[in-house]
Amino acid sequence: MAEKVYRTELTPLSFLSRSAYMFPDKEAVVYGDRRYSYKEFEERVNRLASRLSDAGFQKGDRIAFLCPNTPPMLEGTFAIPAAGLVMVTINTRLSAGEVEYIIEHSKSKMVFVDHELEDLLEGVDESVERIRIDDTGEEGDPYEDYLAEGSAEPGPSVLEDEEEVISVNYTSGTTGRPKGVMYTYRGAYISALGNVIETQMNYETRYLWTLPMFHCNGWTYPWAVTAVAGTHVCLRKVEPGRIWDLFESEEISHYCAAPTVQIPLANHDGKRELDQQVTAVIAGYVPTPTLLNQLLELNVRPIHTYGLTETYGPMTTSAPRKEWEEKDPEEHARLLARQGQGYVTADLVRVVDDDMNDVPLDGETMGEIVMHGNMVMKGYLDNEEETEKSFKGGWYHSGDLAVWHPDGYIEIKDRDKDVIISGGENISGVEVEQVLAEHPNILEAAVTAMPDEHYGERPKAFVTLKQGAETTEQEIIDFVKERIARFKAPAAVEFLDELPKTSTGKVQKYVLREREEESQNGQES
Amino acid sequence: MAEKVYRTELTPLSFLSRSAYMFPDKEAVVYGDRRYSYKEFEERVNRLASRLSDAGFQKGDRIAFLCPNTPPMLEGTFAIPAAGLVMVTINTRLSAGEVEYIIEHSKSKMVFVDHELEDLLEGVDESVERIRIDDTGEEGDPYEDYLAEGSAEPGPSVLEDEEEVISVNYTSGTTGRPKGVMYTYRGAYISALGNVIETQMNYETRYLWTLPMFHCNGWTYPWAVTAVAGTHVCLRKVEPGRIWDLFESEEISHYCAAPTVQIPLANHDGKRELDQQVTAVIAGYVPTPTLLNQLLELNVRPIHTYGLTETYGPMTTSAPRKEWEEKDPEEHARLLARQGQGYVTADLVRVVDDDMNDVPLDGETMGEIVMHGNMVMKGYLDNEEETEKSFKGGWYHSGDLAVWHPDGYIEIKDRDKDVIISGGENISGVEVEQVLAEHPNILEAAVTAMPDEHYGERPKAFVTLKQGAETTEQEIIDFVKERIARFKAPAAVEFLDELPKTSTGKVQKYVLREREEESQNGQES
Repeated sequence: MAEKVYRTELTPLSFLSRSAYMFPDKEAVVYGDRRYSYKEFEERVNRLASRLSDAGFQKGDRIAFLCPNTPPMLEGTFAIPAAGLVMVTINTRLSAGEVEYIIEHSKSKMVFVDHELEDLLEGVDESVERIRIDDTGEEGDPYEDYLAEGSAEPGPSVLEDEEEVISVNYTSGTTGRPKGVMYTYRGAYISALGNVIETQMNYETRYLWTLPMFHCNGWTYPWAVTAVAGTHVCLRKVEPGRIWDLFESEEISHYCAAPTVQIPLANHDGKRELDQQVTAVIAGYVPTPTLLNQLLELNVRPIHTYGLTETYGPMTTSAPRKEWEEKDPEEHARLLARQGQGYVTADLVRVVDDDMNDVPLDGETMGEIVMHGNMVMKGYLDNEEETEKSFKGGWYHSGDLAVWHPDGYIEIKDRDKDVIISGGENISGVEVEQVLAEHPNILEAAVTAMPDEHYGERPKAFVTLKQGAETTEQEIIDFVKERIARFKAPAAVEFLDELPKTSTGKVQKYVLREREEESQNGQES
Repeated sequence: MAEKVYRTELTPLSFLSRSAYMFPDKEAVVYGDRRYSYKEFEERVNRLASRLSDAGFQKGDRIAFLCPNTPPMLEGTFAIPAAGLVMVTINTRLSAGEVEYIIEHSKSKMVFVDHELEDLLEGVDESVERIRIDDTGEEGDPYEDYLAEGSAEPGPSVLEDEEEVISVNYTSGTTGRPKGVMYTYRGAYISALGNVIETQMNYETRYLWTLPMFHCNGWTYPWAVTAVAGTHVCLRKVEPGRIWDLFESEEISHYCAAPTVQIPLANHDGKRELDQQVTAVIAGYVPTPTLLNQLLELNVRPIHTYGLTETYGPMTTSAPRKEWEEKDPEEHARLLARQGQGYVTADLVRVVDDDMNDVPLDGETMGEIVMHGNMVMKGYLDNEEETEKSFKGGWYHSGDLAVWHPDGYIEIKDRDKDVIISGGENISGVEVEQVLAEHPNILEAAVTAMPDEHYGERPKAFVTLKQGAETTEQEIIDFVKERIARFKAPAAVEFLDELPKTSTGKVQKYVLREREEESQNGQES
């Protein structure tokens, strides 16, 4: 038999055709006053796919999208692969130079660009076709006119092998040139189902798009939410007040965000205890126990996950255990703030030493988190050297340092190898940050190494304060000393208006560290 | 790269190792006073797998299980494939001759047999090794002693390709010799995830084992429940009173059963409205609107699904649509009683004519349901002829007749081609049965054809009455005539103490039909 009756290549595009077939009148997309049913959503995707199919591209050609979380971004996530093409997502917070680099490196043939972001294409070669999205949803909007030229009927599938590439997501790494992370149809399908199960989405799900879709394809949620015929509530800008309103007016059940979005949300004036529980999926940086407890009090159920662009976003979860319920809230939140273990659809992750041996499961020995399986990227686009390096020993190397607890859960002690080595002792910046987050006046804190003649390095804290709050350096240092080993307390505290962050909201500790080193060198010279 | 970092073969065995790793102390198996944590459950599976690995079998050898829903049956479902062997499930209600046939046909090298079922092995060749299960869970039980010889440590995986066969489930078809339906690791994995999502299971799930595990590997629920680290509540015998007690004492969240189990359950003296909602997954025969409404009133949420042994059990669901809520309860239940469409993990199903063309989506034209994709069996064991026949035209042929509604949902009008052709009009026996089920005194009804000189065929109803209830043939005929087209009303009604059923509880309409034909021939001769 040439074609197997018992095999269909796994593709997340099947989720849309099935949901549109079974629930044509269900609300698929909400965006301000615009509302598309699943039938309409699918027709718009079909139009875009059909128009792209007619445009003369070759199978596998790359098409870029530079767009906030509007309906076109969601449509592109389905339509580009439906036309046999590969979507390249671009972080909207990058500089024009970085955008130019990504479009050039990915050899994108075409770019869809939101009208507010057109300036970012100034360096892009003229040969790359551009379609502007005016975000009106109406005739006269170049994107809408482009769609209108396509057919609303579904085209034939051109997928031959589920391991083909569906999209390329460029890493927002804190150092070096961005790398193009390749996702497969199989990986996207399996990861999306993993997210449905781990975050308990179902036919009632109403999902708020706080997480950028350009980030790891929105952690595969464009596909996951569609798999359960859920409703996508799109959001052009992340504004805490508006989010609190939408939680209630759109009866939101789920949203995803990094702590950098969760913190201002949980501290916003408009916050209130919700009647209907909302599930918040948190990843991107280690959440503090303080934040987790704040969310619980607002009837927001936090699910803590961890992953990287290279793992389709989250691939581990700190799935709560029954025995945690007996712990005090502080300890409970601390357990929840660990990275946990692999999704039901992932392999278990490991923490290894430099020779790829498992570190002892003692909760103390640091090692690198390595991953394997269907939730790991196919590799970096046109970058065999980096791919091989990151796949050394048959496992993907995250670069994140963690300990492995006796109960099998892992816990990141520092991302980006940001450990402070002080007088021969390793100090985890994250651990100190978690204590600082408990301080009533501190909004955010980052702890990094500062050079020290005697100890080699000492921790230094950079903090932002809550609105109107006041405190002193000494008071903060004492606060930490009362709570953890005294040698871990910051040797200095600097107050900032805001912490330096990457375009995806990760705190750039290396910026703080470099600044610190420069300032000390300046003093010395 | 010989081994792909980004690929792990899909296997439902990974669910057990992951759940045991993440939730070692969670209750995995409950059986009367016996309780196994996930750690203990996995250790028992490891012991059985290790013992089997040491027994000198070749990879792919078949091992049979003839056992009710006790812990060993559940353990075998994981341990046999873990040892690289293939599980053959045997229906415990078969005759000794049928059991002999299945063990011989499958070339099973060994059989695990419950102590109450040993007599069924009387015809089985002496060369087939037997392990008796005394169901004590203690030393001295041959099964337990066998386990004790194995190692509690997990062995190495011998799976090379996810399309290898994990198990063989013999069909309980109403005619002909049973056929051995082959399931793959990939299909089992994907089907199990489909069941998790469609029936909304999660880390809180407590599943009651009313559905036999020998039937389609328990519709893949041994794997699905384990995927969410749910609790398996085992059950040796299906007794309605005990089930009502367990719903409450074990805080059951989910169970599966055919209408033939649901009906006595919903009509049992011990029934009561439950405080905690239980999800009942129904498949195996068309549920009547009456049954669905009865369940809703008891706080049992029915999810209606449909499938065959050849589709890993359920592969379609009549997923409810919001607009149904506005319908009256009768109409709502009637919509829910349709077979719906494919699972999120399945391809959409079709209804086709003899030339494999789609029938019109008019809700009237009958055709055959055909299926395709990852939830279809690999084929029949050592039976290429039947495999090819059932895969004709690249789709699996269910043999079930249905109409295709304008809304895309399918509805079975008769299984097993059991249509009544009366004066040139097609009458659906199921439709008449659904009306009969509304009758306050009728417990179960089956409608089949009886030969008629004038019309060719006429419908005849066979009914069982509720305890203590009385009624007459004429009263029943009038009841039907008031509700649907008069020509569909039974020409005769026969009262039975019980309906003839297959070992899996399907009503054997062909038995009734044959009996009817013989009795008429008898009269004529």
